[in-house]
Amino acid sequence: MADRISTLVMFGATGDLARRMLLPSLYGLDSDGLLPDNLRIIGTARTALDDAEFRKRADAALQEHLPEGFYSAGIAQRFLGRLHYVPLDITEPQHFSDLAQAIGDACHGVAIFLSTAPSLFKPTIDGLAGAGLACPTVRMALEKPLGTDLESSREINDAVHAHFPEERTFRIDHYLGKETVQNLIALRFANLMFEPLWNSAHIDHVQITVAETVGLEGRGDYYDGSGALRDMVQNHMLQLVALVAMEPPSDFNATAVRDEKVKVLRALRPITAADVEATTVTGQYARGAIDGEPVPGYDDEIGRDSATETFVAIKAHIDNWRWKGVPFYLRTGKRMPMRDTEIFIQFKDVPYSIFASRGATTRPNKLIIGLQPEESIELRLMGKTPGLDRQGVRLREIPLDIGLANAFSEHRRRIAYERLLLDLIEGDPTLFVRRDEVEAQWAWIDGIRAAWAEKGIGPRPYAAGTWGPSAAIALTERDGISWHE
Amino acid sequence: MADRISTLVMFGATGDLARRMLLPSLYGLDSDGLLPDNLRIIGTARTALDDAEFRKRADAALQEHLPEGFYSAGIAQRFLGRLHYVPLDITEPQHFSDLAQAIGDACHGVAIFLSTAPSLFKPTIDGLAGAGLACPTVRMALEKPLGTDLESSREINDAVHAHFPEERTFRIDHYLGKETVQNLIALRFANLMFEPLWNSAHIDHVQITVAETVGLEGRGDYYDGSGALRDMVQNHMLQLVALVAMEPPSDFNATAVRDEKVKVLRALRPITAADVEATTVTGQYARGAIDGEPVPGYDDEIGRDSATETFVAIKAHIDNWRWKGVPFYLRTGKRMPMRDTEIFIQFKDVPYSIFASRGATTRPNKLIIGLQPEESIELRLMGKTPGLDRQGVRLREIPLDIGLANAFSEHRRRIAYERLLLDLIEGDPTLFVRRDEVEAQWAWIDGIRAAWAEKGIGPRPYAAGTWGPSAAIALTERDGISWHE
Repeated sequence: MADRISTLVMFGATGDLARRMLLPSLYGLDSDGLLPDNLRIIGTARTALDDAEFRKRADAALQEHLPEGFYSAGIAQRFLGRLHYVPLDITEPQHFSDLAQAIGDACHGVAIFLSTAPSLFKPTIDGLAGAGLACPTVRMALEKPLGTDLESSREINDAVHAHFPEERTFRIDHYLGKETVQNLIALRFANLMFEPLWNSAHIDHVQITVAETVGLEGRGDYYDGSGALRDMVQNHMLQLVALVAMEPPSDFNATAVRDEKVKVLRALRPITAADVEATTVTGQYARGAIDGEPVPGYDDEIGRDSATETFVAIKAHIDNWRWKGVPFYLRTGKRMPMRDTEIFIQFKDVPYSIFASRGATTRPNKLIIGLQPEESIELRLMGKTPGLDRQGVRLREIPLDIGLANAFSEHRRRIAYERLLLDLIEGDPTLFVRRDEVEAQWAWIDGIRAAWAEKGIGPRPYAAGTWGPSAAIALTERDGISWHE
Repeated sequence: MADRISTLVMFGATGDLARRMLLPSLYGLDSDGLLPDNLRIIGTARTALDDAEFRKRADAALQEHLPEGFYSAGIAQRFLGRLHYVPLDITEPQHFSDLAQAIGDACHGVAIFLSTAPSLFKPTIDGLAGAGLACPTVRMALEKPLGTDLESSREINDAVHAHFPEERTFRIDHYLGKETVQNLIALRFANLMFEPLWNSAHIDHVQITVAETVGLEGRGDYYDGSGALRDMVQNHMLQLVALVAMEPPSDFNATAVRDEKVKVLRALRPITAADVEATTVTGQYARGAIDGEPVPGYDDEIGRDSATETFVAIKAHIDNWRWKGVPFYLRTGKRMPMRDTEIFIQFKDVPYSIFASRGATTRPNKLIIGLQPEESIELRLMGKTPGLDRQGVRLREIPLDIGLANAFSEHRRRIAYERLLLDLIEGDPTLFVRRDEVEAQWAWIDGIRAAWAEKGIGPRPYAAGTWGPSAAIALTERDGISWHE
């Protein structure tokens, strides 16, 4: 493993992500003694603050966003002592020099975390390089969105690559920091029982759902230029597809795992104008209700007519030996009836039921990996209902909790960013996204967008608080499959 | 399904099995309204009793042997009203006529349950036939032991077959009445997940243990002429082997299931003088202690020197495509450290651990089917221990309860005989043992006994309260395998 850093520079330090996720995550690591003793965290943003003001804001963010009862004044004091602040306007080269001065020896033990708009990536990186901050050891971490299509993503990656080689570039997809996502990897490759079944001979289909109840949450400017396909499918959902579908890597390391993931992403069958109507559904929420409370429609929220989709459902295929003929149904939306992120893997039914003559019905085995609101892994098997079977054999589905709740209750649930920030600090890129993955993701997404454009497909309205346009139901029901809800 | 009977005749009605198991089982069925309204139960034995005395003894047996709180005076009254008694000495033809008279119309709705010494089977059946009680509809149920070797078993089966055809002969192995044994069948054939793994490519080995803490329990006369091999392995344990190892039957019915079981029993690799020392271990308990209490040795208990084995361990093989190279380790003994009957199926380890480079160790998946003291089914998988994996990836074994305890707590645990008696009453022979199975079992057992005799192998002493002679440990350890305890 690479050396641990001693300076973490956070661009966007006054932003939403820093307040809600990054600072609480770093605090959590500090409270467990996992940060290097000498680690300094230098925040930077346009706002003119000094160290004291930044610490005060950070303290408020911790108190607001840490889990109930986790904030401790003593730990906060130690943690806040690590924080420093340098105001920075990316158009001012002097500000980069100020930052360089605050960092001191930029060539030893520095990681820079960019959580800013993608349009600022290139000028920021150029500014860093100009101030001597692109030393041959500096790690560069990038938050999404990494561009808006393959071309803009390449521009960003080229700009980064001009000063930071791939092995020091840490592209964050925070889904990879989740325990259950890593547990999925363990489940697949630390058990003999799954891998022989993990293919088109035994898996009927896979569903991946990312359902949010929220609307725009003040992110309208960004979101309206992006939409559900690019905001959710391009990154998080395709990463989940890659982890579910990848071949066994030769090792659990950055190269081997990402080599396998990118192969899956490249094997995604392109969706073209010829089949885009049969394989995708896009929607935009209209007025409706969530939990009985009326909520406005998307256009009302954003204050104008918009053709941006807030919902997308896709029937995807992976064209390789393992997955030929196994549909991967993806769906994500805002203003859904419930917050629910899960991977649902349905095995095929038994080829023939010996119990049918006794009146029993079998249901297919299922593996359900929950990511939100709770992380969980559940395997569903059939068992015999105890009894004397006078009305025939009775079978029932038995849910088995493989996840965290029962087996691991002694551990506190961590924020996904804790794992990723620590991996950045320690220099392990296994759970970060490589450039070829990002570009394969964009290539597939751009194909869908081009097909929509060619066919003039825009989002269909759906009432807030529903599971999207009815066409999304039809997408699976045509195949005799129901969305798991 | 066949017609329900209206008269159940119990030979050996004053015996231990009747008091401890059969009467409580019939009471349990009656309490759940599962007995035919008009069902009469006619007990018979040599003791001179009348109906009232038999009912009184039966009532005492119920109060002694029913689970705490299950006895109800009202239900007992109804149940005892079904009981009648006919004293019977099998050397007295008149007694069979008395029985026939008590039965009335013997040609409609009669089942006869023989729970007597095997030496009495033939004269009893001849007596029944002589009194016109072998009508073309009468069902004949037989308790073990069915002979002491293949030849004597054939004699019994021939005697039965002279008057009762195979389809009306119900050979009881009460292990088949256990919920978990039937659940094993459901698990294998109502789930897609197990069958593709259920073979030599994915299963490392199988262990079947039947450990008792008791010694002779007053059964010395019978037991000393039998021994562990014939008392336990020949019937119960080989039936478990057959259920674990059988191919998927084409239906869950008597013919299909037993066709598959007998194929396994016939595929057991014969143990010969050439390999009997390497594949079997036999023992006899000497003085020792159970739960800290001193207990006498077998010879002391039986009052003479005996060469009867009270322990046997066998490394068995099934010579067919599915099981080639998978050892089935069987062991049973009296005066073991604990009462424990279980089937332990160990899968192979993953072919290669991608987590080894991260310091993690995987353990093989396991399926553990407990029969005594509690019925249970547990699947053990590996999962990731939550955490940030700073000292490498941490994996741990997760026990999943597929059995009765959690999923089915609403049901009372039944005696295995309840199911079997009800199947007898209703005429379903699926869970009874067919003649060809019994004979295949004996053929294999006789081969082991002949090999022991040829090599002059007698039981080695082991201290009561231990897991048998140390050679039994060596039997598996030579293969790098430890007995599951």
